[in-house]
Amino acid sequence: MTSVTASTFQVPIEVCATLAFALSGLIAGARKKLDAFGVFVVTGVAAFGGGTLRDILLDRRPFFWVDHSHWLWLMLFLCLFAMIFMRSRHIQLTERAILIPDALGLGLYAALGTQTALMLQMPVIICALMGVMTAVFGGVLRDILCNEIPKAFNDHQPYAVIAFAGSLLVVAFNEFQIPQWLCIFIPAGLIFIFRIAAIYLVWRLPSWKIESE
Amino acid sequence: MTSVTASTFQVPIEVCATLAFALSGLIAGARKKLDAFGVFVVTGVAAFGGGTLRDILLDRRPFFWVDHSHWLWLMLFLCLFAMIFMRSRHIQLTERAILIPDALGLGLYAALGTQTALMLQMPVIICALMGVMTAVFGGVLRDILCNEIPKAFNDHQPYAVIAFAGSLLVVAFNEFQIPQWLCIFIPAGLIFIFRIAAIYLVWRLPSWKIESE
Amino acid sequence: MTSVTASTFQVPIEVCATLAFALSGLIAGARKKLDAFGVFVVTGVAAFGGGTLRDILLDRRPFFWVDHSHWLWLMLFLCLFAMIFMRSRHIQLTERAILIPDALGLGLYAALGTQTALMLQMPVIICALMGVMTAVFGGVLRDILCNEIPKAFNDHQPYAVIAFAGSLLVVAFNEFQIPQWLCIFIPAGLIFIFRIAAIYLVWRLPSWKIESE
Repeated sequence: MTSVTASTFQVPIEVCATLAFALSGLIAGARKKLDAFGVFVVTGVAAFGGGTLRDILLDRRPFFWVDHSHWLWLMLFLCLFAMIFMRSRHIQLTERAILIPDALGLGLYAALGTQTALMLQMPVIICALMGVMTAVFGGVLRDILCNEIPKAFNDHQPYAVIAFAGSLLVVAFNEFQIPQWLCIFIPAGLIFIFRIAAIYLVWRLPSWKIESE
Repeated sequence: MTSVTASTFQVPIEVCATLAFALSGLIAGARKKLDAFGVFVVTGVAAFGGGTLRDILLDRRPFFWVDHSHWLWLMLFLCLFAMIFMRSRHIQLTERAILIPDALGLGLYAALGTQTALMLQMPVIICALMGVMTAVFGGVLRDILCNEIPKAFNDHQPYAVIAFAGSLLVVAFNEFQIPQWLCIFIPAGLIFIFRIAAIYLVWRLPSWKIESE
Repeated sequence: MTSVTASTFQVPIEVCATLAFALSGLIAGARKKLDAFGVFVVTGVAAFGGGTLRDILLDRRPFFWVDHSHWLWLMLFLCLFAMIFMRSRHIQLTERAILIPDALGLGLYAALGTQTALMLQMPVIICALMGVMTAVFGGVLRDILCNEIPKAFNDHQPYAVIAFAGSLLVVAFNEFQIPQWLCIFIPAGLIFIFRIAAIYLVWRLPSWKIESE
């Protein structure tokens, strides 16, 4: 009873994206002054939350982190290491520091999540949605645990929208029989580039002008 | 591998309830000044969250929105349309505007959720709980995403309690071999009527008088 | 289609832990001045949330509260009783009042959750994680519903850490072929004792010293 694997690239990609998001969770938890356990959970949820939610919705087992449980040990030691290292060095953890790993994770997870749903013959919109969910909901759950409105929902910058466009691109590439690794890496790269561009060129989502009560 | 359908009425009912709750999510997200993506997610979660949580707990696949994925496209276009339309018209979105569709959705989802659990031979309390969960948890998840205490938990008005009573009525009706469409529509209608009455007659739940520290 | 049972001790243990956590949820909801429905949901989620999340992640059905649905009725009546009783007596519900039942539930749920995952031949870290999740996530979900940062994440006291150590002990005991009821009760007891000690001796987790922006 093996899990459906998107490709032989699944593991290295999931690893990179996971580390990127884990770092974003570690920083978010530390900035919120959580204790060691809180930081560990927020780190783990940021890293694995999106993919786990996707797998629950697609009824797909086992989860990545069950199949590769040594990653949990690694994450545990990384958290301990980070805690000790950060204590001694007084690193400045700015909002800005998590943007690059976050953009990388966004691209890789969106492409991989879409590919995973495509393997299960899901309809186009579901595949794109699963891509977005894999990429974005780790961060959403991270922010819910930190008792904040998810940043993806109200920072008025293109983030999930870029992941959505990239996910549709993955679907389109698959239609044209392009080799699988290109189906993942080209959209992932484009998502990364557009996300970085969005940050540095300060692109804004159209705002929602409503006269509220 | 078809899903267990409550009746041939399932699809039109689920559609009406879904639109009603989607509207409530759209309004809630817009009032919270979320960006376009945030509003879309809150709309989707308000519409499909309760039913999806029910299906996860009952281990029932595929989800309504996977089986009928064109609804996701429709919702996407509705959100875009609403965004453009609302910008140009400066509509007043008051708390009150969402009460009628919400009451309609409450009745339909509660009856349908109960019926769904009944089809799976669940015990009475689980059926009623699934009815309440289907009806109420879309709104609960919507409020959690908006970083508020769920309105269903602390507005001290009968809301879930009415859905619970209606859900028990669905179970009772099924005992008496009443035709399925009546089992759904009579309790759904009663829930709607009582909910509207509760709002206009300002019924209050008994409050929880505790000397807290 | 029977569920995998950890042992014949599963039911009485789950009952004790469930009541302990239900009480913690009841008190938390009442202190937050939720209405009757809100208190009932927070009570139920505190009691069953951790185990249900564990079972969703392990793809294990039916849930405890589906299999033993009379517990839901009992909880419903307990909530009603508590509401009436508390109204008339003006009981002081202090933070401190929930610590003892909470510590008891922590030990029992951690040991039981670990044992459940062991029965499914999960890797060590997953078993320990499931123990911690069973014990801690009812409280985490309770706090999320109450719109607070989960207390387990930022009170800087050893709580989940003790559950984690106890869960690893359950795994170790199973390696040595120790009778199952000892595998559960000894770690559960130790967790209880260490948790109480942590409270009264005011042990602190190392804090996370970061210069944040």
